[in-house]
Amino acid sequence: MNHYKITLIGAGNVATHLGKAIKKAGHEVVQVYSHALSNAEVLAGQINALPTDNLNRIETTADVYIIVAKDDLIHEIFNQIKMERKVIAHTSGMTAIEGVGVFYPLQTFSKNRQLDFSKVPVFIESNQPELLKLAESITTKVFEVTMHQRQALHLAAVFVNNFSNHMLATANNILGKEDLSFDYLKPLLEETIHKIEEMSPKQAQTGPAIRGDQKTIEQHLAVIKEKYPDFLDIYSAITNSIQQ
Amino acid sequence: MNHYKITLIGAGNVATHLGKAIKKAGHEVVQVYSHALSNAEVLAGQINALPTDNLNRIETTADVYIIVAKDDLIHEIFNQIKMERKVIAHTSGMTAIEGVGVFYPLQTFSKNRQLDFSKVPVFIESNQPELLKLAESITTKVFEVTMHQRQALHLAAVFVNNFSNHMLATANNILGKEDLSFDYLKPLLEETIHKIEEMSPKQAQTGPAIRGDQKTIEQHLAVIKEKYPDFLDIYSAITNSIQQ
Repeated sequence: MNHYKITLIGAGNVATHLGKAIKKAGHEVVQVYSHALSNAEVLAGQINALPTDNLNRIETTADVYIIVAKDDLIHEIFNQIKMERKVIAHTSGMTAIEGVGVFYPLQTFSKNRQLDFSKVPVFIESNQPELLKLAESITTKVFEVTMHQRQALHLAAVFVNNFSNHMLATANNILGKEDLSFDYLKPLLEETIHKIEEMSPKQAQTGPAIRGDQKTIEQHLAVIKEKYPDFLDIYSAITNSIQQ
Repeated sequence: MNHYKITLIGAGNVATHLGKAIKKAGHEVVQVYSHALSNAEVLAGQINALPTDNLNRIETTADVYIIVAKDDLIHEIFNQIKMERKVIAHTSGMTAIEGVGVFYPLQTFSKNRQLDFSKVPVFIESNQPELLKLAESITTKVFEVTMHQRQALHLAAVFVNNFSNHMLATANNILGKEDLSFDYLKPLLEETIHKIEEMSPKQAQTGPAIRGDQKTIEQHLAVIKEKYPDFLDIYSAITNSIQQ
C-alpha cells in the first residue's frame, strides 16, 4: 500500500470523518486548514496534523490536497493553492472544475455520530491514480464515475436523505398538533425501509395516491386545509408525482 | 383473557395479517367475507373459518365484526350487516361512521412479508370494551384516540411511508438514467434512518435547502430541467417547504 501525505482544506463534519479515516489507514495528514483557526486546531489535534487559518501557509510537501468546503468556495480556494504536479481534489457532489479531481463520499456526516468509513461509498473522478488508491485504502466501496453520474448521485441523495427526512419532519409536525409522539410511527418507518431490502421502491409503493383512492385524498386535503395549510403544496405535488 | 368470536369482512393484506394474529391469540374467526369467493377461501382456509361471498349470509353468532375494506365500501357494508348489540368496527385511518368502532392498525401490510403483529400499534376509537380487549390480546401497543388524532396519524403515516417511499423511487429513477444502481444509496438510507433514533427529524435535516445553499439548488434545477423535467414540481415544492 502507498502511504500519502495529505493536506485537508476544511475542518467541518466531512473533513473530520475523512481526516480520521485517512489517519487510521496509515497515511499522514500534514496540515489542516480552516478559516477559523480554532476549528483547524480541533481537527488537527485529533489526527496529529498542523493547523492553519492562512491559505498562503499551505505547504507544498503533501501528495494530495483535499478541499472540503462549501461549493461556492472551492473554486476560490483552488485558485489560491493550485500547484504544479500536485493532486488536488474536492469532495463536492455537484461542482466541476477543470484540473480538480473529485473524491465524493456519499453519506450524511454528523459531528457527534461515529461512522464506519470503510462502508461509505466514495466516487472518484480523476485521471490521477493517487485519488483512487487513497480511496481504496479507506473504504471497500470505491467507484469511478463520470461527472454526470456523480451529479445524478448527488441529486438522488438529496431525495433519499434530505427529502425523506423532511417527510418525517412533516409527519412529526402533523402529530405534534394532536399531541401525538413520533414514536407511534417508528414501526411503520422500520417496515418501510425493510421492504426496500426485498423489492424496488416502485414495487413497494402503497397508499391512496398509487391506488387512485380519490376519496381518501380528498379527506386528507380537507384535514390539511383546515389544520396544516403550509403542507398543501407538498402534499399535492407528491401525490401528483406518484400518480404520474 | 376473553375469547371472542370474530367475523372478518375482507380478505386482503390487512385482513390476512389481522386474521392470523387474531387466531394466534386464541380467538375464533368464524367467517371470512370477500366479494371474490376465492379470496375468502384462501384466508378462511388459513385460519379455520368459513368463507362466503354473500353479505346476506354473514351470521349473527360473532361477537365482533371487523370491516377491512376500501374506505368507500365501508359505509355500504355497514348498512348491510349492522346488527343490534354487536360490535362492528372498521380498520380505516380516515373514515368516520356513527355506530362503527375503529380498530386502526398503523402499519404497511404486504401479502408476502411476515410481520410480528405484537409490535404493530393499534388505535382504538370505540365506547365498547370488546375492541380494546381484542386489540390488547394481539399487540402490546394499543392506544385509545380521538377521531382527529387518528386522522392525523393516518396523514402522518402517508408522509412517513408513501411519500418517503416515493422519494426513494424518484432517486432510483434518477440513478437509472445514468446506469447506476440504487445500492449505492443504501448506506445513506440506513444512516438517514439511524439518525432518527438519536434526534428529531427537524434536528437531523441537512442539505442545500436547509442551509440555504442556492448555488447547489440551482445546479440541481439545471440538471432536473435538462434530464428529469417530471421531477421539477416535487423538487421545488419540497425545497420550498424545507426552507419555510
